[in-house]
Amino acid sequence: MSDTGVTVKKNVDFSEWYVEVVLKAELADYAPVKGCMIIRPDAYAVWEKIQEVVNKKIKVTGHRNAYFPMFIPEAFLKREAEHFEGFTPEVAWITQGGDTSLEEKLAVRPTSETIMYSMYAKWIRSWRDLPLKINQWCNIVRWETKATKLFLRTREFLWQEGHTAHQTAEECETEVMWAINMYKDVIENMLAIPVLIGTKSESEKFAGALYTTAVESIMPDGKALQMGTSHNLGQHFAKVFDVKYIGEDKMDHYVWQSSWGITTRLIGAMIMVHGDDKGLIMPPKVAPTQIVIVPIPFKGQDAEAIAAKTCEIADILKTNGLSVILDDRQEYTPGWKFNQWELKGVPIRIEVGPRDLKNGQVVMVRRDTGQKIFVKEADISDTVEKLFQDIQDNMFAKAKTMLQEKITAVMSYDEFKQVVEGKGGFIKTSWCGSPDCEAKIKAETGATIRVIPFEKEEPKICCVYCGKSGKDVVYFARSY
Amino acid sequence: MSDTGVTVKKNVDFSEWYVEVVLKAELADYAPVKGCMIIRPDAYAVWEKIQEVVNKKIKVTGHRNAYFPMFIPEAFLKREAEHFEGFTPEVAWITQGGDTSLEEKLAVRPTSETIMYSMYAKWIRSWRDLPLKINQWCNIVRWETKATKLFLRTREFLWQEGHTAHQTAEECETEVMWAINMYKDVIENMLAIPVLIGTKSESEKFAGALYTTAVESIMPDGKALQMGTSHNLGQHFAKVFDVKYIGEDKMDHYVWQSSWGITTRLIGAMIMVHGDDKGLIMPPKVAPTQIVIVPIPFKGQDAEAIAAKTCEIADILKTNGLSVILDDRQEYTPGWKFNQWELKGVPIRIEVGPRDLKNGQVVMVRRDTGQKIFVKEADISDTVEKLFQDIQDNMFAKAKTMLQEKITAVMSYDEFKQVVEGKGGFIKTSWCGSPDCEAKIKAETGATIRVIPFEKEEPKICCVYCGKSGKDVVYFARSY
Repeated sequence: MSDTGVTVKKNVDFSEWYVEVVLKAELADYAPVKGCMIIRPDAYAVWEKIQEVVNKKIKVTGHRNAYFPMFIPEAFLKREAEHFEGFTPEVAWITQGGDTSLEEKLAVRPTSETIMYSMYAKWIRSWRDLPLKINQWCNIVRWETKATKLFLRTREFLWQEGHTAHQTAEECETEVMWAINMYKDVIENMLAIPVLIGTKSESEKFAGALYTTAVESIMPDGKALQMGTSHNLGQHFAKVFDVKYIGEDKMDHYVWQSSWGITTRLIGAMIMVHGDDKGLIMPPKVAPTQIVIVPIPFKGQDAEAIAAKTCEIADILKTNGLSVILDDRQEYTPGWKFNQWELKGVPIRIEVGPRDLKNGQVVMVRRDTGQKIFVKEADISDTVEKLFQDIQDNMFAKAKTMLQEKITAVMSYDEFKQVVEGKGGFIKTSWCGSPDCEAKIKAETGATIRVIPFEKEEPKICCVYCGKSGKDVVYFARSY
Repeated sequence: MSDTGVTVKKNVDFSEWYVEVVLKAELADYAPVKGCMIIRPDAYAVWEKIQEVVNKKIKVTGHRNAYFPMFIPEAFLKREAEHFEGFTPEVAWITQGGDTSLEEKLAVRPTSETIMYSMYAKWIRSWRDLPLKINQWCNIVRWETKATKLFLRTREFLWQEGHTAHQTAEECETEVMWAINMYKDVIENMLAIPVLIGTKSESEKFAGALYTTAVESIMPDGKALQMGTSHNLGQHFAKVFDVKYIGEDKMDHYVWQSSWGITTRLIGAMIMVHGDDKGLIMPPKVAPTQIVIVPIPFKGQDAEAIAAKTCEIADILKTNGLSVILDDRQEYTPGWKFNQWELKGVPIRIEVGPRDLKNGQVVMVRRDTGQKIFVKEADISDTVEKLFQDIQDNMFAKAKTMLQEKITAVMSYDEFKQVVEGKGGFIKTSWCGSPDCEAKIKAETGATIRVIPFEKEEPKICCVYCGKSGKDVVYFARSY
């Protein structure tokens, strides 16, 4: 197993464990271009399941998918000053097409606000054209200079970006909140990862936004990970790209805009949160393979009967719409197969041996708990359905316990620093609202405000840094 | 109507008609970057339907989706000499990341053979890893210097590229043929466009392939359009990227490889082939809106009853899984709406007026023929289902008639030149197999060999150019 199995323990060297799991479970690989990665089929299948669910949710609410060019003229990025400043340091530039140098270099999209809104300005004429709610699934490039990390930070990644335009500030606000709550739902219910939800501080907001909302979760090493964002762009971009409409009042108005996105980094979070020393643990709702069936070989007549039985079970489960692999390879032992499918995180393993055959039963083994259950043949479909729900629930509950354990309420800056250096995680404390305190805390500890929760609490202490009156209860953390 | 409707007749100025239809039906728009386009929601929805069907067909046959980086080191492209020569003139290059010049410039993928096979070399170890069948949906960049055309030739487009590796030449050949036949099926059955299917000549094959198969169709202006290709790469790339496996015989072998793709240009073909002077005609199987319901307003009590009835019908059809728009906007007249939905090519329009309400019926109008049918309320679902099949079949039959009319068998080079300059279309004739004759014909007429059909025919004449013995019956045409 040293060649194929995970050799590093999750709680000994988390970072190395993560890389081993990703590579050995064949979710991703390093690309020949520095900072880039390949998303291999088992991980891409997770992305496809996320796409399927998100597409359903966005289409039923009247959003439509489209595709905008990847190339953005430099001048476009420059129009919104904050936006340009925020993104320019990490833009990859096209300067040459064939043998010819380009007159104006082109940015590879780090995000698509500018290119999209230049078109919105053309397409939107009157209030009848609003709301305009467009989404696109595409690749994004940010030329990271920090160390890259598979799924979490790579120079190219995949995402979805929704971009909407509305008549009123209220409608826009509703959209912003709809999107961030939709993300919370998808991440918690599909990926079984609980999140904190709230607003970003001014210094952490999207470059060019009025304000940014976010869902954040905590990884087992105590670092926070931003899981999705939804920005209220106000009229900032509308004013620089001249996105106006003629209202029912026959007057010109600027539109109100939102943008929101989630990326393939969600796959990284799923690996980190749920995996164990044996490898991946895939939530049943996104598992590329939901069930693996392993015949336990035995000489003589039984071998054929077991083969036939496992085949029959596989067919029934496939007919139920499940993704099933019957691993009847002759060249590997059952033990080798168990290890391999545990590494790949398949939620349920079904074993059928001679004794099971005789007793009209199968053995089911849960990947999340390792629990073995004997199941009568007639009950297989029902039991699988019930187990999937149990596993999904149990994985979420376990992750929720971890999240709660990793939230520490601190009453003083000394305690703050102790927690940052020690157990890490989210630090729940009071903040006066001053960017100055926030900047100093960041400089001194590396921790930033991850969210100012939507659900307001009365601050228990004064600002943890300056001692002035506490404005908000916020969550700080070091982050990916 | 001059502002919103199509002002150019299809048979008067085909090229201008095409641009007007694409822009006015809001399928696409020109991007602010030269040669690039925006795929708007109604066109992207067609692409999504193609994706859905192709994904089903490739997954059920054991292919899996993945994602490879868009950036390819220059050195990779250079490894296969023919490939490099074929693609380099139209590569867009990244030379700068943030403020830093890159040490080695990076190609934006013009196709992904090189990046993918560098990984295949690492992933494939033994015969157990084969066949490896991976597909990706992504954007592609080719820095065209010729005039670009919406959907048909743009500097960035979307496609799907399948890349497989096999143990034997036979298995690879089977894959190549499976893919090209799958494309024929999708294009004929979903887009209702009949195709010719066959092999490309040496000079027209994919750069680096052993041979290329293709499906080709004809546009109403007599120019051919390549609709999809499937390449047998033989062991060319395997040898330069060292993609080897240890066989059951314990020996090293190079793999045999195929690659195949279709692009968003299919949407352009669909527009060209089916559209008319009123605008688009969408095949029901890919139409983003399959049915539009227009209440015919009338004062008094009827208005409310008609509103309720149209709403009821819309709900029933939606429940049947159809994509339906109930156009109950007050600010437009029925006539205006008819024009708009005809422009957008919606296959069936349902009208409900006071008399229909009294008679318990609706009026259905086919977009393809303009035919009006009175349908009893109870028969709506069945009639719609039947009409969809009729429309799909009729569109295909009409396109097939056009294809047949645009195939001219020629017996001499004089006749050849006459047809090229005159009616255009496919010229069916004999060719000796010499690249020299082919090159001269191209230079003199602009026509190239589009396919050497799989179904062989006995040549009726000697080579149309040199008069030596005819080897193959082939189809020439000028093309997009």
